[in-house]
Amino acid sequence: MIGCWINGEPGEAVSARDRGLQYGDGLFETMAVVDGRVRLLESHLARLYSGLSRLAIAPPDRDMLSHEIAAAAASPGAGVLKLMITRGVGARGYRPHAGAATRVLMAWPARENPWTASGVELRLCVTRFAEQPALAGLKTLNRLEQVLARAEWGDDPPEGLMLDGAGRVISGTMSNLFAVLPQGLATPALGRCGVKGVMRGAVLAAAAAHGIATVERDLTLADLAHASELFLSNALIGVWPVRRLGQRTLAVGPLARAAQGWIASL
Amino acid sequence: MIGCWINGEPGEAVSARDRGLQYGDGLFETMAVVDGRVRLLESHLARLYSGLSRLAIAPPDRDMLSHEIAAAAASPGAGVLKLMITRGVGARGYRPHAGAATRVLMAWPARENPWTASGVELRLCVTRFAEQPALAGLKTLNRLEQVLARAEWGDDPPEGLMLDGAGRVISGTMSNLFAVLPQGLATPALGRCGVKGVMRGAVLAAAAAHGIATVERDLTLADLAHASELFLSNALIGVWPVRRLGQRTLAVGPLARAAQGWIASL
Repeated sequence: MIGCWINGEPGEAVSARDRGLQYGDGLFETMAVVDGRVRLLESHLARLYSGLSRLAIAPPDRDMLSHEIAAAAASPGAGVLKLMITRGVGARGYRPHAGAATRVLMAWPARENPWTASGVELRLCVTRFAEQPALAGLKTLNRLEQVLARAEWGDDPPEGLMLDGAGRVISGTMSNLFAVLPQGLATPALGRCGVKGVMRGAVLAAAAAHGIATVERDLTLADLAHASELFLSNALIGVWPVRRLGQRTLAVGPLARAAQGWIASL
Repeated sequence: MIGCWINGEPGEAVSARDRGLQYGDGLFETMAVVDGRVRLLESHLARLYSGLSRLAIAPPDRDMLSHEIAAAAASPGAGVLKLMITRGVGARGYRPHAGAATRVLMAWPARENPWTASGVELRLCVTRFAEQPALAGLKTLNRLEQVLARAEWGDDPPEGLMLDGAGRVISGTMSNLFAVLPQGLATPALGRCGVKGVMRGAVLAAAAAHGIATVERDLTLADLAHASELFLSNALIGVWPVRRLGQRTLAVGPLARAAQGWIASL
């Protein structure tokens, strides 16, 4: 870790009474830093403040937070920022208080990312997402499902595919999925579970801007069998072509490479 | 708060990199202290270590932990202990590491509990539990569903009833539910969601020991309409008779009072 700030001050100590620890009562954003600048910053902040509103967590002053993020992004060597906003320190019990949120900001170096070029194998996870419309789409601090899914295997491959309890395809453990279908570019609807990635939104917007039909819909593994391409997205990795899913081998297709081009200018 | 210990040392600072904060990657127990002794300590530890095994979190030495709990329980004024065990400080990313767990132990004074005698009204919550068999029964640090449910109302009544997405009755936001049916003492099966309370287990065992038929099964609101008594349990409150649910008023019945008697000797 390169740096850590709690409520704007250097340090990495959070109170044991913080509701972020006690109940996962908060949200986070993981952001790529490119040349000292946060990629898709406005989209990250828009998702964060929308989530804070849904959870009724007191929103930090946006100018103050933006200033803190910019300062962290300027740290030498920073390639990744992780921002957590929790409901703050509270009394015992689930009932939320009206106090101030806690801001935790961490700067990390970027990781190597050979898979943008090579593509990845996508493993099918046994652990499934539960359907919880009240939290669907949000990047909350309740992430045990993805922890259990990611615990199913070791180093390789770098990502696994998760379904929901009814067998719908939802996302990777840390990324969103796109499928190139005859009808256009499809990505799973996330009204029941899953995280609406900022890069997912950017890819959908860029595809539409390039005249490509896009659709958010329920998808099954059988639907994916009809896809000419599959690719993954998240804020850090950008776009990873999927080269293998189960017994099927896929070629890196033109839309995955086009998407990589679109996001290169973000 | 009367006292707080992190990994056995006085203090309340937890690392921002702790996976308990980052992902809710951990478990907790809330224990009643009566006359300096933890009520149902062995049951709490059994549930905790079972949960640690399910989540593959490195278990703390049990003698050490028991010693720390006993010391905290001896704090003057302690009426409640809250113990959190997290997977500990880890690197970025969902994949679990093999490092040491973090132990957070807090001592609080007991709260007033007038509802043991008077009984409570039970409000019906709009927020529902998602079905997640991989986590069902465990008291994990992923508790946003209950936070949202408890945020639906203010001070009164003290508890609300939660259903799952399919409309099955599961539990209160912080307590388990019992219904006295013609067939015996019933409590919701918790294989899909909900927390298997330590007091729930104690009430089931005591009822069986007193020759009362008990059953863990799926229950609907329609089933509850046939109950002659309803009561709630948790480790701190003990047993609360339910005096009102929706439009229905209930009398405090003999089995709720008997259950209060059984647990008085625990």
